[in-house]
Amino acid sequence: MDIATLRETHPDHWMKACAIRVLAMDAVQAANSGHPGMPMGMADVATVLFEKHLKFDASNPDWADRDRFILSAGHGSMLLYALLHLTGYEDMTIEQIKNFRQWGAITAGHPEYGHAKGVETTTGPLGQGISNAVGFAMAEEALRARFGRKLVDHYTYVIAGDGCLMEGISQEAIGLAGKQKLSKLIVLWDNNDISIDGSISLSDVTDQRARFAASGWKVLSCDGHDPADIDRALTEAKKSARPVLIDCKTHIGFGSPAKQDSSGAHGSPLGPEEIAKVREIYGWPYPAFEIPAEIKGQWEAIGSRGAAARAEWEARLAGLSDMRRKQFARMMAGEAPKKLAPTIRALKKQISEAAPKVATRKSSELVLEVVNPIMPETMGGSADLTGSNNTKTADLGIFGPEDRKGRYIHYGIREHGMAAAMNGLALHGGIRPYGGTFMCFTDYARGAMRLSALMGVPTVYVMTHDSIGLGEDGPTHQPVEHLAISRATPNTWVFRPADTVETAEAWELALTSTKTPSVLALSRQGLPTVRTKHTTKNLTAQGAYVLAEATAKRQAILIATGSEVEIALAARALLEAEGIGTRVVSMPCQELFAEQPESYRKRVLPAGPVRVAIEAATGFGWDRWLSGERGRAAKAAFIGMDGFGASAPAPTLYKEFGITAEAAAAKVKELLG
Amino acid sequence: MDIATLRETHPDHWMKACAIRVLAMDAVQAANSGHPGMPMGMADVATVLFEKHLKFDASNPDWADRDRFILSAGHGSMLLYALLHLTGYEDMTIEQIKNFRQWGAITAGHPEYGHAKGVETTTGPLGQGISNAVGFAMAEEALRARFGRKLVDHYTYVIAGDGCLMEGISQEAIGLAGKQKLSKLIVLWDNNDISIDGSISLSDVTDQRARFAASGWKVLSCDGHDPADIDRALTEAKKSARPVLIDCKTHIGFGSPAKQDSSGAHGSPLGPEEIAKVREIYGWPYPAFEIPAEIKGQWEAIGSRGAAARAEWEARLAGLSDMRRKQFARMMAGEAPKKLAPTIRALKKQISEAAPKVATRKSSELVLEVVNPIMPETMGGSADLTGSNNTKTADLGIFGPEDRKGRYIHYGIREHGMAAAMNGLALHGGIRPYGGTFMCFTDYARGAMRLSALMGVPTVYVMTHDSIGLGEDGPTHQPVEHLAISRATPNTWVFRPADTVETAEAWELALTSTKTPSVLALSRQGLPTVRTKHTTKNLTAQGAYVLAEATAKRQAILIATGSEVEIALAARALLEAEGIGTRVVSMPCQELFAEQPESYRKRVLPAGPVRVAIEAATGFGWDRWLSGERGRAAKAAFIGMDGFGASAPAPTLYKEFGITAEAAAAKVKELLG
Repeated sequence: MDIATLRETHPDHWMKACAIRVLAMDAVQAANSGHPGMPMGMADVATVLFEKHLKFDASNPDWADRDRFILSAGHGSMLLYALLHLTGYEDMTIEQIKNFRQWGAITAGHPEYGHAKGVETTTGPLGQGISNAVGFAMAEEALRARFGRKLVDHYTYVIAGDGCLMEGISQEAIGLAGKQKLSKLIVLWDNNDISIDGSISLSDVTDQRARFAASGWKVLSCDGHDPADIDRALTEAKKSARPVLIDCKTHIGFGSPAKQDSSGAHGSPLGPEEIAKVREIYGWPYPAFEIPAEIKGQWEAIGSRGAAARAEWEARLAGLSDMRRKQFARMMAGEAPKKLAPTIRALKKQISEAAPKVATRKSSELVLEVVNPIMPETMGGSADLTGSNNTKTADLGIFGPEDRKGRYIHYGIREHGMAAAMNGLALHGGIRPYGGTFMCFTDYARGAMRLSALMGVPTVYVMTHDSIGLGEDGPTHQPVEHLAISRATPNTWVFRPADTVETAEAWELALTSTKTPSVLALSRQGLPTVRTKHTTKNLTAQGAYVLAEATAKRQAILIATGSEVEIALAARALLEAEGIGTRVVSMPCQELFAEQPESYRKRVLPAGPVRVAIEAATGFGWDRWLSGERGRAAKAAFIGMDGFGASAPAPTLYKEFGITAEAAAAKVKELLG
Repeated sequence: MDIATLRETHPDHWMKACAIRVLAMDAVQAANSGHPGMPMGMADVATVLFEKHLKFDASNPDWADRDRFILSAGHGSMLLYALLHLTGYEDMTIEQIKNFRQWGAITAGHPEYGHAKGVETTTGPLGQGISNAVGFAMAEEALRARFGRKLVDHYTYVIAGDGCLMEGISQEAIGLAGKQKLSKLIVLWDNNDISIDGSISLSDVTDQRARFAASGWKVLSCDGHDPADIDRALTEAKKSARPVLIDCKTHIGFGSPAKQDSSGAHGSPLGPEEIAKVREIYGWPYPAFEIPAEIKGQWEAIGSRGAAARAEWEARLAGLSDMRRKQFARMMAGEAPKKLAPTIRALKKQISEAAPKVATRKSSELVLEVVNPIMPETMGGSADLTGSNNTKTADLGIFGPEDRKGRYIHYGIREHGMAAAMNGLALHGGIRPYGGTFMCFTDYARGAMRLSALMGVPTVYVMTHDSIGLGEDGPTHQPVEHLAISRATPNTWVFRPADTVETAEAWELALTSTKTPSVLALSRQGLPTVRTKHTTKNLTAQGAYVLAEATAKRQAILIATGSEVEIALAARALLEAEGIGTRVVSMPCQELFAEQPESYRKRVLPAGPVRVAIEAATGFGWDRWLSGERGRAAKAAFIGMDGFGASAPAPTLYKEFGITAEAAAAKVKELLG
C-alpha cells in the first residue's frame, strides 16, 4: 500500500505509525548515529501488533503472562523505544528518547536487557532474538502445562530482518521450533530486500517461505504497509497449531524520497533536509520529539488496553492455593528452593565418605539426580550428546509436543541455537535452564554465551570433555583455549571442579546465581575424590583454597584445577618425600577467587614459596596467579599446553605433553635451584 | 538394496565396499574408540564415487586439478583412511590403519589436514567440511576463469551427515553456494535418520530436500546401497548448472545385526562378537586388517585410474608460457610475489611522511589498494559490512555467476560460513582469502577461526570496530574479550596496529604467512600516524618495539596497542613534562614478541621502570608482559576494561571508563609512589 492510499484509508493508523517513524528519524538524527530505515519500514506492522494483538499493560511491564515482544532486528531499537514511550512505559520518557545512544540513557544503541522496561532480551547480534524466542515459547509451553492456561497463556512475537534469517543460528532456531510445534511463536519477517551491502540478491537467493515451511512452520504473507492485511495475517497466525512466519513485504525507510528501498536508509541518519521532506510526505507538521496530545492519548489507550486482563489474571493468581502461588512466585523470581543447600550438603557428605573415582561429567549427573527432583524449574538438555554430557536424569521426561511437562530438551546438533534458547528460557522467567555439549564447542555457542554474560542471565553450560583428557577424538575435540575464552569474558563463572564434591559446590553456586552464567568444565576421564574430609562450607565459593598443606617447611605451592588436581597431589607426595614442603591449592573458579579479600588471597597464595600451576590448557591468563600476585622473591612456572592436542589415549597424551606429577615436581626443584 | 541382493547382483562392488567396512570395524575395535557406523553405511556410495567419478591419482596426491573429496562427517574418518589405503596412497600403510587414533600415527581420530595425504581439510566439528567445500568450489571457479578449463576443471565432492546439516553453519554454506551457483559442488548426504541421541525425529522434522531446493540447489536421490542408482545420481549431478544435493538413503552400521539403524553403531566399537557376525553376513572370511590381493589390486587400479589424465594435464601445464606457468605455480604454492616487500615499503614511506589521521580500518584499505593489484591471488570479502570493514578496493570486481574473475565476495550475513569458506579457498590453493566483519563477531566465526589455526591456514580476518572506540552501537558490538580469545588460540597472529604504517607491516606479515592465520584488529575511529620516521625494517615483525624513548631518566614504560598507542604517547608527554622519563612500547603482536630472543625482549622491557599497559579491552592475559617478564623491583598496572562497554560516543566512553592519558600518567605516579 502506498502512502497516499494509506493516509486516506487509515488516517488514525497512519498518524500513530508516523509517531513511531518521526521519533526514530529524529532520535537517530540527534544522536547522529543509528538505524532509521527499519523502524520506518516496520512501523505499520508494529502499530497493528500493539494496537490489536499484543497482550500487555504498559503500567505493569513485569506481568508474568504478558505476550513477549522481541525485536530480533535489534539495530531497529528506536522502533521499540518509540513504542515503549508512546504506550506509556514510565521509564521511557521523551528525555530518554532525546538521549538515544548517550551515556547513562536507557536507550542504548541496541536494546539492552535490564536497561529499559519492555526490553525482553538484548538484541543486535543478528539471529539471537529469534533464537531466544524459541526459548521464550518453550518456557510458556512448559509453565502452561504445569500451572494451567488460566495463569500462563501468551504469545511470543518476533520481528526479524533478513540479517537474522541469513545467520546460521536462525536455522537452528527454526528447526527446533518446527520440531517442538511451538504454535504460540509468531515471527514477523521484515522482508525489505535490503542489507547493508545492498540488495539481498547480492548474497542470497533463498526462498525463505519455502525454507520455513521445510521445517514445519506455517507461512503467511501480508502487505506490511496495509493495516487490514497485517491484522488479517496476525489473526490467522494466532490460530495456527505450528509456529508461524509472516512474510511482511515492506519498504525500508518508507517515505524517504532519497533513501527508501536502499541500504542508505539502514544505518545512518537521514539528514535534516531529507527529514523535512519526509515530514511533508507524511503530513506530520510537528517539530522534533513533539507528539500531539491526541496521538499520544491514542497510544496510551493502547498501552492500558491490557489492564483489565491483567487485573483478572491477578485475581486468578490470588485464587491459587498458597503453596502453588508461592511456588509460581519463587520460580518466576528465580530463587532457589530452601532445600537446595541441605541437599547439596548431604550429597557432599556421602561422597566425601564413599570417595568414588568418577569423571566429573558423571559427578555432575550425580548432583543433578538429587537437584532435579527438588527444583521443578530446571530444564536440561544437550546438543545431541546426552549420554556423553550426562545431562539427563531419570526423573526428567522428554519435553515435546506430546509432553509439555517433560523437562529434558533434545536440542539437536545446534549448540548456538541451544545456548540462545536457554537464554530465552531463563529470560522468560520460571525456568532455570542447563544444557550440555563438548567444551570445545564453546566456539559454536559463543555468540549466545557472551549474551548470557552481558545480560546477566544465570544460564548453566555443562561443558564436558574439557581437555586432552578426552583422548582419541583428537585436537578438533580437545579444548585448549576454551577455559581462557570463558575466563576472559566478563561476568562469567568458569568452574573446573576436581571431583564430585567440588562439582556439587559448583552446581550449588550456579543454581543460586541470579546475575551470572556458569560454565562447568567437566572431565571425560575418571578422577579420584580429593575432598575426602567433609566440610559443610562451600569451599568452591571462595574460588580457591588450600586442599593439602605442606608438612615439611613450605617451599612450594602447586595450583591446579579439575583433572590436574590429582596430578598436583601426586607431585606434592613426590616433593614431600624429598623433604620439600608443598602446599596444593585447588582453584575451581578464578573469578570467585579474584573477588575474595586480599587477605584471603594472600593466605592461600602467600609470598615466598615457588609456584607451579598445572592445567591441561593454554597458560594464557595464568600469570595473574603465578606472578601478578606473587611475592617478590618467588619464582613460578606453568605446566600445561603450548599448542593444540593430538589423537591418542589420554594417559599417553598427558605423558607426551609433559603434564605429569614427575614434571611438576621436577619444575619445582628447578625453580628452587 | 539389501545385502543379499547386493552381494548377488554386484559381487565385485560388494567386496570392494566390504574392504572399507571391515577396515573401519577392525581399526575402531583395535583403537577401542571411534565411529564404525558411518563408514559401514556410506561404503557403497564412496566406492562408486571413487571407482567411477572422482578424478584423482593416488600416486600424486597434490595434483592441482584433482577433484576434491571432503569428508564433512569427519567422525567417519576410517572411511577416508580406508579409501586412501586401498587406493594406494603411499603414506597410508596398513600399519597406520592398525594404529588408528594412536600417538604419532597419521590416522588421527578425526581427519587432520597435514597429517595424511588425501585429507583435504580438517573435519570433525560438524558443518565445517561442507562449508569449506563452498570455498573449494569458489576457488575452482575463480582459477578456471583465470587459467582456463584446460588447467582447472574439477569437482568438489562432500559427504555430509545429519549433524552437518543441523548445524547453523550449513545454512550459511547452502545459501552462499546457491547464490553462487556452484555447479561443480556435489554434496552426498548420508541420510540415515540417526544421530547420537537416537532418531533424528527427536530433534528435527526438517525436509532437507526442500530446504536445499529453497536455496537454489538441485536435489537428487538415490538408494545409498545400490551401486547403479548411486552411479546414476552422480552422473546426473555432474551435469547440473547448480550445486547438487544427493539424498543417499543409507543404513548406519549396515549389516550389523545388533546395531544397524541405531545410534549404538555411531560412536563405539561393535565388539568382537558382533564383528564376527558381521563378517559372516558380509561373506568376508579374512582376518582383521587383511585385504586379499585381488581386492587390493582392484582398488589400486582405481587409485591409478587418473594417472593418464594427470599426465595429460602435466603436459598442458608444460605447454603454458613461462610466465603463466610460473604464476600458476607461485599462486598454488602460496608464495607472495617479490613485489610485495617494495610495495609495502613505498607505502610506509609515503605514509610516514604524509602522516594522515585515519582509522586503521581505512589504513587497511590503503594497504589493500596497493596490494590487490600486485597479488592476483587475493580474494576479499565481508559478511555484509563492506563499507564498514573497508575490504573492497576499486580494482576488485564482484565474484559471482556472472563474473568469475571478480575477486570480491559478498558473503552475506554469514560470519561462520565466510570463515569456513575462506579456509576452503586457502586450502584449495591458488587463492589468498581475506574477509571482514566487526571484531565482536569473532564469536560467530570462532568454529572456523580455530580450524584456520589448527590446520595452519594463512587466512586473514579483517576485524574492524575493535573496541569501545566504535561508540554508540553499544556493548553488543564492542569487543572486550576478543583480543584475548584470539591471543589464547595457538598458532594465531593477532595484530592490533596503531597507525597506517603498522597496518601495512601487519598486512605484509599476514600475506607472507604460510602456516599461521592472522587477525587484524582495526579501529573504527581515526588515529594519528605515530610512525612518522620511516624505517625499511618491518618493526611489527618483532611484535613490540620502542616507539618513543624516555628523554629524562627512564622511570616508566607504557605498553600499548592500536588505538591506545596515541594515549600512551600523550601520557608520556605529561610525565616527561614532570621530569618522569617514560618509554612508550608499541606492541602490535604479542605472539611475535613472544617468539623474539630473550635478549630482545629484555631490551624492550627492561627490569627497573614501572610498567603500565593500556588497551581498551580486558586485561586477561596481560600479566605476562606486566609481571611475568618484569624485573623484581618493578610495579605494574593495567588500564583497560573491567567489564562490558556501553552506548555513547567514543570519546565519552574512553573518559568514563578511565582509559585516558591522564589516568595512565596518574597510575605511573602512583606506582612510583
